[in-house]
Amino acid sequence: MAVAVNVVVMAAGKGTRMKSRLPKVLHRLGGRALLQHVLDTAAALQARRVVVITGHGAEQVEAGVTARASAAALQFVRQEPQLGTGHAVQQAAPLLPDEGVVVVLSGDVPLIQADTLRALIAASAGDKLALLTIAFDDPTGYGRIVRDAGGAVQAIVEQKDASEAQREIKEIYSGIMAAPAKQLKAWLAKLDNQNAQGEYYLTDVVKFAVAQGVAVTAHRITDAAQVAGVNSPLQLAELERAYQLRIARGLLEQGVRLADPARLDVRGELRCAQDVEIDVGCVFTGQVELGEGVRIGPHCVIGNARIAAGAVIHPYTHIEGGTSESDWVEVGAGALIGPYARLRPGAKLGEDVHIGNFVEVKNSTLASGAKANHLAYLGDSQVGARVNYGAGSITANYDGANKHRTVIEDDVHIGSNCVLIAPVTIGAGGTVGGGSTITKNTAPGALTVARARQASVPGWTRPSKSSVKKP
Amino acid sequence: MAVAVNVVVMAAGKGTRMKSRLPKVLHRLGGRALLQHVLDTAAALQARRVVVITGHGAEQVEAGVTARASAAALQFVRQEPQLGTGHAVQQAAPLLPDEGVVVVLSGDVPLIQADTLRALIAASAGDKLALLTIAFDDPTGYGRIVRDAGGAVQAIVEQKDASEAQREIKEIYSGIMAAPAKQLKAWLAKLDNQNAQGEYYLTDVVKFAVAQGVAVTAHRITDAAQVAGVNSPLQLAELERAYQLRIARGLLEQGVRLADPARLDVRGELRCAQDVEIDVGCVFTGQVELGEGVRIGPHCVIGNARIAAGAVIHPYTHIEGGTSESDWVEVGAGALIGPYARLRPGAKLGEDVHIGNFVEVKNSTLASGAKANHLAYLGDSQVGARVNYGAGSITANYDGANKHRTVIEDDVHIGSNCVLIAPVTIGAGGTVGGGSTITKNTAPGALTVARARQASVPGWTRPSKSSVKKP
Amino acid sequence: MAVAVNVVVMAAGKGTRMKSRLPKVLHRLGGRALLQHVLDTAAALQARRVVVITGHGAEQVEAGVTARASAAALQFVRQEPQLGTGHAVQQAAPLLPDEGVVVVLSGDVPLIQADTLRALIAASAGDKLALLTIAFDDPTGYGRIVRDAGGAVQAIVEQKDASEAQREIKEIYSGIMAAPAKQLKAWLAKLDNQNAQGEYYLTDVVKFAVAQGVAVTAHRITDAAQVAGVNSPLQLAELERAYQLRIARGLLEQGVRLADPARLDVRGELRCAQDVEIDVGCVFTGQVELGEGVRIGPHCVIGNARIAAGAVIHPYTHIEGGTSESDWVEVGAGALIGPYARLRPGAKLGEDVHIGNFVEVKNSTLASGAKANHLAYLGDSQVGARVNYGAGSITANYDGANKHRTVIEDDVHIGSNCVLIAPVTIGAGGTVGGGSTITKNTAPGALTVARARQASVPGWTRPSKSSVKKP
Repeated sequence: MAVAVNVVVMAAGKGTRMKSRLPKVLHRLGGRALLQHVLDTAAALQARRVVVITGHGAEQVEAGVTARASAAALQFVRQEPQLGTGHAVQQAAPLLPDEGVVVVLSGDVPLIQADTLRALIAASAGDKLALLTIAFDDPTGYGRIVRDAGGAVQAIVEQKDASEAQREIKEIYSGIMAAPAKQLKAWLAKLDNQNAQGEYYLTDVVKFAVAQGVAVTAHRITDAAQVAGVNSPLQLAELERAYQLRIARGLLEQGVRLADPARLDVRGELRCAQDVEIDVGCVFTGQVELGEGVRIGPHCVIGNARIAAGAVIHPYTHIEGGTSESDWVEVGAGALIGPYARLRPGAKLGEDVHIGNFVEVKNSTLASGAKANHLAYLGDSQVGARVNYGAGSITANYDGANKHRTVIEDDVHIGSNCVLIAPVTIGAGGTVGGGSTITKNTAPGALTVARARQASVPGWTRPSKSSVKKP
Repeated sequence: MAVAVNVVVMAAGKGTRMKSRLPKVLHRLGGRALLQHVLDTAAALQARRVVVITGHGAEQVEAGVTARASAAALQFVRQEPQLGTGHAVQQAAPLLPDEGVVVVLSGDVPLIQADTLRALIAASAGDKLALLTIAFDDPTGYGRIVRDAGGAVQAIVEQKDASEAQREIKEIYSGIMAAPAKQLKAWLAKLDNQNAQGEYYLTDVVKFAVAQGVAVTAHRITDAAQVAGVNSPLQLAELERAYQLRIARGLLEQGVRLADPARLDVRGELRCAQDVEIDVGCVFTGQVELGEGVRIGPHCVIGNARIAAGAVIHPYTHIEGGTSESDWVEVGAGALIGPYARLRPGAKLGEDVHIGNFVEVKNSTLASGAKANHLAYLGDSQVGARVNYGAGSITANYDGANKHRTVIEDDVHIGSNCVLIAPVTIGAGGTVGGGSTITKNTAPGALTVARARQASVPGWTRPSKSSVKKP
Repeated sequence: MAVAVNVVVMAAGKGTRMKSRLPKVLHRLGGRALLQHVLDTAAALQARRVVVITGHGAEQVEAGVTARASAAALQFVRQEPQLGTGHAVQQAAPLLPDEGVVVVLSGDVPLIQADTLRALIAASAGDKLALLTIAFDDPTGYGRIVRDAGGAVQAIVEQKDASEAQREIKEIYSGIMAAPAKQLKAWLAKLDNQNAQGEYYLTDVVKFAVAQGVAVTAHRITDAAQVAGVNSPLQLAELERAYQLRIARGLLEQGVRLADPARLDVRGELRCAQDVEIDVGCVFTGQVELGEGVRIGPHCVIGNARIAAGAVIHPYTHIEGGTSESDWVEVGAGALIGPYARLRPGAKLGEDVHIGNFVEVKNSTLASGAKANHLAYLGDSQVGARVNYGAGSITANYDGANKHRTVIEDDVHIGSNCVLIAPVTIGAGGTVGGGSTITKNTAPGALTVARARQASVPGWTRPSKSSVKKP
């Protein structure tokens, strides 16, 4: 893109209709703040400057978004009080260069696409005022695009100022424009608030451009979601669905099989290799990578994880890695996970590991072929290859103050309902008998048991209602 | 509302197309019987009398619904045999006063709204016959509203009796009317069954009114769901979705954030404070209150619970309080619950309590800061502040005949895989070592262990295929 | 059906747009391969011969489908290279008799219905060429059905060969035809590839028929799903939804109550008795039978199971029987299962059995009234009537090499967190104290305990941060 791009984002509004303490532009869509979507799109344009105009909840907003790595640093300016869209952009003017174009975006219009903006910038060509427009069957309430007989844009006329004939116009202004920077700054300086609302309107720049002989062009799109603003929880919910359907279609186009595109939620990035299958009701958050042939069962919730080729994730599995890559959950090739398995930050599972129902794994490494199939807890542990970790067994890694590590070497067999009190090491090839509480290290190859003698009381009478004996 | 309101509800039909043993009007929509919806709406009108006409499954129907507190007591009359809608209302006539209006409703038209009925009653004004009507693109099968040149309603003409021209009429009678009580009773007395079906039609009152010079007025609405009847499981399912979408929109308007309005089910009352977020696939039953900032994760099922501000409910959490308020589940402010947590009747959790995965809590009180994070059962217990209840630990509250209580005082630390055999008290600040079965009370501050000595057999040979040794 | 029916199924295509290693016709819809749907429909026609033309991935395709019992055995012919639809059917010609009709189907058009094909065959009447057609609002890309003034079909004209006027024709050829066998074989022999694509087109048989004076008739349907082909994951997902909605409507018509028809997935056969209720988000696979009044809670995943009358399945229950009927899961009348229960192959539960949260049952028989309500594992076991199996208890059925059986006789009470090390038998009426590890058989009626003495250290100081004592 030859022309230098600068971006101004309006993010000062209160969003009263959201009925929330959270500033509107920080509400999340697909797991990201509305404003963050816009900033990420700005970054995709390789904007030289990105100026965000804040106002209501300014501190919270400024702390709540970040520039993408390698993108232009964000600059914030405050608009206080809020005196209209023109007044908002005036605040940004001192930070804008005279070269290139300025693209004006809204922090509550999250789904505008970089390609659309590139086309808008191309339409501006650095010397024209380019407006992003769309035709609505019902344009009520929007500013209409008035053109002359030759089709050249003459003005944006607001609903209340529109003549009967103008109200019939279906093409409306989206709120997004690209303007030559130098002219925009000059026009901004000329805005006044002599209108019904007593506000400075950014749309007045159109009349200055026309008066000045600067060409005004409209880049018209058809995808309403791209210019849809969020003013209420209902609109947010509708746009969330539009966004999720867009993601689902993208995955389908890549070859991912989705049991129901309407029942997939991706709140982050989901990267899939070939022949991935995702069943109904799954939710993905953060960064997730699925290797070739991975199958995800119904109703799984998976975040920050790398799942290698051929792994099968059974229903109701909850994987939640940490946000730093070292804390991602890793699942090895061919592993079988779930149902009802929970893998937490730092769970690193090798090839062909099996984690079964009602098993929780946290901050633990399991080498290839290790199995914990039933009702178990593995925390702060290192588990060797081919270990069989019995049903109901627990690593007691927490003494009430500190966490300690449990080491289970290769080929160990831990029986059922054992407690391994960390720090402790079970030597390679060893066996721990069911029901044992292990407090000391065990030698390789040993059978270790900590178990009381079994004794019976013949003919014992079980308590009856309201007696209090204890068996 | 100046005019006195009486309500008659037709609920005698069999509902053959439901293909169910349950009388049609007892089928549930949003967790309530169809007829109960209608009765709750009648209660909202502050009706003086509510007469329900029963027939098929009369006893079951009469036992299956209740008057709302403060509403007029229900009266039931039986219609046996069923000889038509007019015959049905005739059965109610002896119970109706001569004053005010009578509103005729159907027990299988559950989503009629009180505001609509108030407008219908206002249209009647106590002296006109007011019909609730709606225009359908395809009115086939419905009774058409025939008006004269001046627009006054002249008749309701049934499909089979309609002329070619009348069949073109889109406005149809919904089955709901408000009539002056005294006149209605007189008209009912004049009905005959001289028609193709040999039934007494309530709609014949229109011709009596017209003949008598009583004005007939139509109150026309546009929301088809309000007058939709349930005749089949398909219609019930469609109306359930319409109802759920109505609830979802109401929540969104209040400011609740719903990840997907199409994947929310509320079968009861859900009251939300500000900034509540509800993820996909959640089901709410009975009475549920969510405090400010509460977040509910995906696929939770929650009934009869009060969840205080700032609590976070992770995925797959199942909360099911009892129906009496003392058995509601209570979750304290800032608590973290789930994933895969189950809170049962009488679970009362204080502030900042943590209940983690695969943990069941029943009839137990947990004071602030108590934690049971993994694979545990707490039943019939009283747990003090800051207690740490270890993974795999169980309160053995049931001796096969009676249930006993477990008391765990403040600051106790229970290790992993312990069994606390009730009745038993663990004194404040005490510690129970992992793997211990505790049968006797322990002193405050003591470390208590019930554990066998660990012993090893070096170089033990693990059983091989088809040997039968036991470790 | 008087006329003998033979079926040819085209299944040689690669399906590049699926972006999958799996041949297109093996992709699953409703849990069955696309081609299998077509073969099952052919079986419903009682076809004498069913010839499947394979090509890309031929071996995998041939191994991936099966003939229904009692249906004609499948015959496969290879089409290599693929030189068009006519060339494909030419490969099958040697296997076709001269009698009766040949129905040509596509392996990637899975939802064609047997009734539709019966009507098509009737239209052919054994001596006419019958084309299955449908009208599309946008027929772009499809072959148009050109008729003469009298309405007789003259030709199928491909999009690129169509005149302006022909492109206006909405009626298109679906790709499915029924032809008299003898004539079809003659026509196939006359096909050439003198066209733009250099392919042998099956649709050229129409012109041969017309030339020869054989009547060509069109059987026109309106249900687009029946003739929809699968060429991409998006189309597969769309057709999956169409299929699931068809199943949901069928269940509703039978009287099954579905909380949301859009959130049901049946991948196999689901047979329901009267008054069955199925909540949102349920997935059924394989063969499932639900008895009268069975209620299935939200988000259950159930496969290969027989659930008897009155049983209640609570949320998040996962039932997965084996595919052979002896491994199906059986749930007795009045049983209560879940939430979070997992029943695995060979779980056979009697009447009024209760399986509660976080309980796994595999290859075990539970007699009537047995209960395992909390956090437990029952594998390879035989559990008597009225047994109470305590929270956290485990059958240790696996010694690292072999699986052994546990027998718990009638009326036994197993305490909490017990381990039963198989092979072992707990005699009738016996009691096992909580926390016991049982390695030897116990006598009927005995109380058996294996438990260490409880001992306390008064005034013990719990470890503080970074100390390493173990309690």
